[in-house]
Amino acid sequence: MNQRTVFFVSDQTGVTAETLGHSLLTQFDGQEFRQVTVPFIDSVDKARAAVQRINAVGAREGHRPIVFSTLVQDELRHVLREADALFLDFFDAFVGPMELELSMQSSHKQGQAHGMADMASYMQRIEATNFAMAHDDGGAARNYDRADVILLGVSRSGKTPTCLYMALQYGVFAANYPLTEDDLEDGDVPAILRPHRRKLFGLTISPERLQHIRRERRAHGRYASSQQVGFELRAAEGLYRRHSIPFIDTSEKSIEEIAAAILNDTGVERRVR
Amino acid sequence: MNQRTVFFVSDQTGVTAETLGHSLLTQFDGQEFRQVTVPFIDSVDKARAAVQRINAVGAREGHRPIVFSTLVQDELRHVLREADALFLDFFDAFVGPMELELSMQSSHKQGQAHGMADMASYMQRIEATNFAMAHDDGGAARNYDRADVILLGVSRSGKTPTCLYMALQYGVFAANYPLTEDDLEDGDVPAILRPHRRKLFGLTISPERLQHIRRERRAHGRYASSQQVGFELRAAEGLYRRHSIPFIDTSEKSIEEIAAAILNDTGVERRVR
Repeated sequence: MNQRTVFFVSDQTGVTAETLGHSLLTQFDGQEFRQVTVPFIDSVDKARAAVQRINAVGAREGHRPIVFSTLVQDELRHVLREADALFLDFFDAFVGPMELELSMQSSHKQGQAHGMADMASYMQRIEATNFAMAHDDGGAARNYDRADVILLGVSRSGKTPTCLYMALQYGVFAANYPLTEDDLEDGDVPAILRPHRRKLFGLTISPERLQHIRRERRAHGRYASSQQVGFELRAAEGLYRRHSIPFIDTSEKSIEEIAAAILNDTGVERRVR
Repeated sequence: MNQRTVFFVSDQTGVTAETLGHSLLTQFDGQEFRQVTVPFIDSVDKARAAVQRINAVGAREGHRPIVFSTLVQDELRHVLREADALFLDFFDAFVGPMELELSMQSSHKQGQAHGMADMASYMQRIEATNFAMAHDDGGAARNYDRADVILLGVSRSGKTPTCLYMALQYGVFAANYPLTEDDLEDGDVPAILRPHRRKLFGLTISPERLQHIRRERRAHGRYASSQQVGFELRAAEGLYRRHSIPFIDTSEKSIEEIAAAILNDTGVERRVR
């Protein structure tokens, strides 16, 4: 099967066009796609240059490319539509029905999403990220009062990337606490966490997957041994169950899925949209 | 103006529906939207419950809600379409034209985007995140050979969140190096970075904005003084210019914009899509 080239064209970062496009491309199993992001197309000249680039690829490959566009300005969309490509524009498809529904005209201003329109939410995300960094894997400065959620789990169960993702994507203050061998042998909620019991959320993972991940880090020794991994996970899950701490298995889940499941299960609100 | 409630309905995390919806909502200035994410709608029963929830809100508010949906399965979309709402579905709009263009049927399998379909890219993102954490603000373990890009900048110019975002979103290995007062007075590329000159990328920021950010951290003292901030920024920009290090001003840019601009300017490839 021939490769197709897909362009994500945006007057801004391209994040929306990429997200949108990826979701659709995953629906076409077996077709190979080459993906090219063309961001910051904010003038007619740049739009014309993008058209030339798209047409050149189509001519070379013998198949017209697919273009996912999130161009807000009619003028730029008009230029892009002249490319010899399947042109799928996001505002074309949805802005019309929304204008009708809301009985108002849209602003057609570029660069609204992923922009700095809202300084408060920007600062919120930065603060949440700093919080996650400062409260990662038992960082010294602990301010659990400020945490929206505190993730528990054994080493390499997915706590750190999940906390960072929740901070960057949702502005949520997420701390994480690594369950040490002492904690696991003790079996009780660690003393420092007891005042914050209702914020606790546990992560677990299958022994096979954890062994695989730990081996990548340290191939030999107890850390990645099946005995050690088995003990830690049994003890962690036992602790969650005994103390009614909600938990999920991260083995088959992406970072986005873990984060979305935690927000959904705990009812913690997104601080940023 | 009356508030409208917007639902992001997904058989998965809701990230695609949220991204889609936010981009469109920002085009309607002045209209107030209440936003609700309804993820993991992966059965007819859950779809029916979502319809009830949507209808209840519409009845209470006197305006029908707007629903952004990324439901892949026809059966579930069919249920949601019965809600008394403006129903905007992403697959409805775009899958048809793509099937025609590619002369193939789409798989209609749920949970492809933001899922674990691709373990290799998952591991890539985790590794890139760990790399960013280990190479943040002069972390001890330095492996700049592995970095795709090394961000330079004074304290609070946006290095850390940008590196983390590039890791989580694109799997890119981004290190960051804080320019110290010694570096700035010296004016040369710090010795440890000289072998990696071509990977360097500078961040700068307006003095007003930097003062504002630093004051939030430490209200008084030299750190946030206009004299100190002015000196650091002039010295940093001088260093970038003298050594032909590309740089951008982050003052008016979101994390997504900074990251997209760096990839665009350097040509560093996304390792994950």
